[in-house]
Amino acid sequence: MPFVRVDALGADRAKLDGLGRAVHEALIDAIGIPEDDLFQVLTSHDGTTGTFRYDPDYLGVHRDDGIVYVDITMRAGRTDDQKKALYAKIAELAGKYADTEPRNVFVTIHENQFSDWSFGNGIGQYLERNQ
Amino acid sequence: MPFVRVDALGADRAKLDGLGRAVHEALIDAIGIPEDDLFQVLTSHDGTTGTFRYDPDYLGVHRDDGIVYVDITMRAGRTDDQKKALYAKIAELAGKYADTEPRNVFVTIHENQFSDWSFGNGIGQYLERNQ
Amino acid sequence: MPFVRVDALGADRAKLDGLGRAVHEALIDAIGIPEDDLFQVLTSHDGTTGTFRYDPDYLGVHRDDGIVYVDITMRAGRTDDQKKALYAKIAELAGKYADTEPRNVFVTIHENQFSDWSFGNGIGQYLERNQ
Repeated sequence: MPFVRVDALGADRAKLDGLGRAVHEALIDAIGIPEDDLFQVLTSHDGTTGTFRYDPDYLGVHRDDGIVYVDITMRAGRTDDQKKALYAKIAELAGKYADTEPRNVFVTIHENQFSDWSFGNGIGQYLERNQ
Repeated sequence: MPFVRVDALGADRAKLDGLGRAVHEALIDAIGIPEDDLFQVLTSHDGTTGTFRYDPDYLGVHRDDGIVYVDITMRAGRTDDQKKALYAKIAELAGKYADTEPRNVFVTIHENQFSDWSFGNGIGQYLERNQ
Repeated sequence: MPFVRVDALGADRAKLDGLGRAVHEALIDAIGIPEDDLFQVLTSHDGTTGTFRYDPDYLGVHRDDGIVYVDITMRAGRTDDQKKALYAKIAELAGKYADTEPRNVFVTIHENQFSDWSFGNGIGQYLERNQ
């Protein structure tokens, strides 16, 4: 169910895959999603037709062009502690799998409902399961 | 009002247009949006600088690189039945207009409020209309 | 905290930067965000692998391929009047900094919570600050 968008600058395919893997394993570890609940769009921007703007020091965290934007949509219901654990694990694994420093990992979460997902075949699978 | 993002792998312009048309007609049919309420960003990824990760069998639906991510933002208020009808119609029409099999159509919905839209000229048109 | 995506057609780097600047200054002016709270992904689409669909006249606003989609995620809590001021300022400044006419500025807002943000180092900074 999580639907994840990752945006990076000048990343090759291996780096994109490493970032995707980091986010997915963190979701399994911190939030308890199933291992096969994997849906991600990973985009590298060239700095010209796709570019980032960011502050290099907001809230005392130093960032540079290694910054990675992680945008997660998942159903509502996770606790603050689960989200804290998620942020910590993404940052840890992004270093391990993609050489991205923790300071460069930006995450934002969008929450929605069981009714807001279709995983194929034109069916709202979570609606069938939870009614 | 719906704002729609569609992401596909290795799709040509005709396929992107067909996917956009499928989503739009499904929104008209299942949700009752006006025909001229059309706002879409359609992106084809090359598999290198833009790539997907997905599970090929989550919830028993078989997916392949023909997978299409449909990400819809619309105001809150639609019923579960309307959403079910929407998923069914998108999957049906994606086959008709873009040769995308129903099993490869992934949809997620983000809901927001009347106040969260400006359709140009710096005005929150739905705020003016609904106050 | 706002996380902003801007999508335009055939825009060069200067235009993308101008659009990003317009949105950021409008957020500072209308919503009161800190000047250094800047996080944006700016994308130009070529009309082939990335393309838009839009209605040229929905709600009586005339649009053309100069249309710009502005997609803002920020925490909930802003008033309708703040959002109205935001739309007006983005449209004004998009003209000033990017030669984009007000009629071509489309904006949608996604709201989330304090818990939904990590600004680096694997920490939920707003959770620490607001508990």
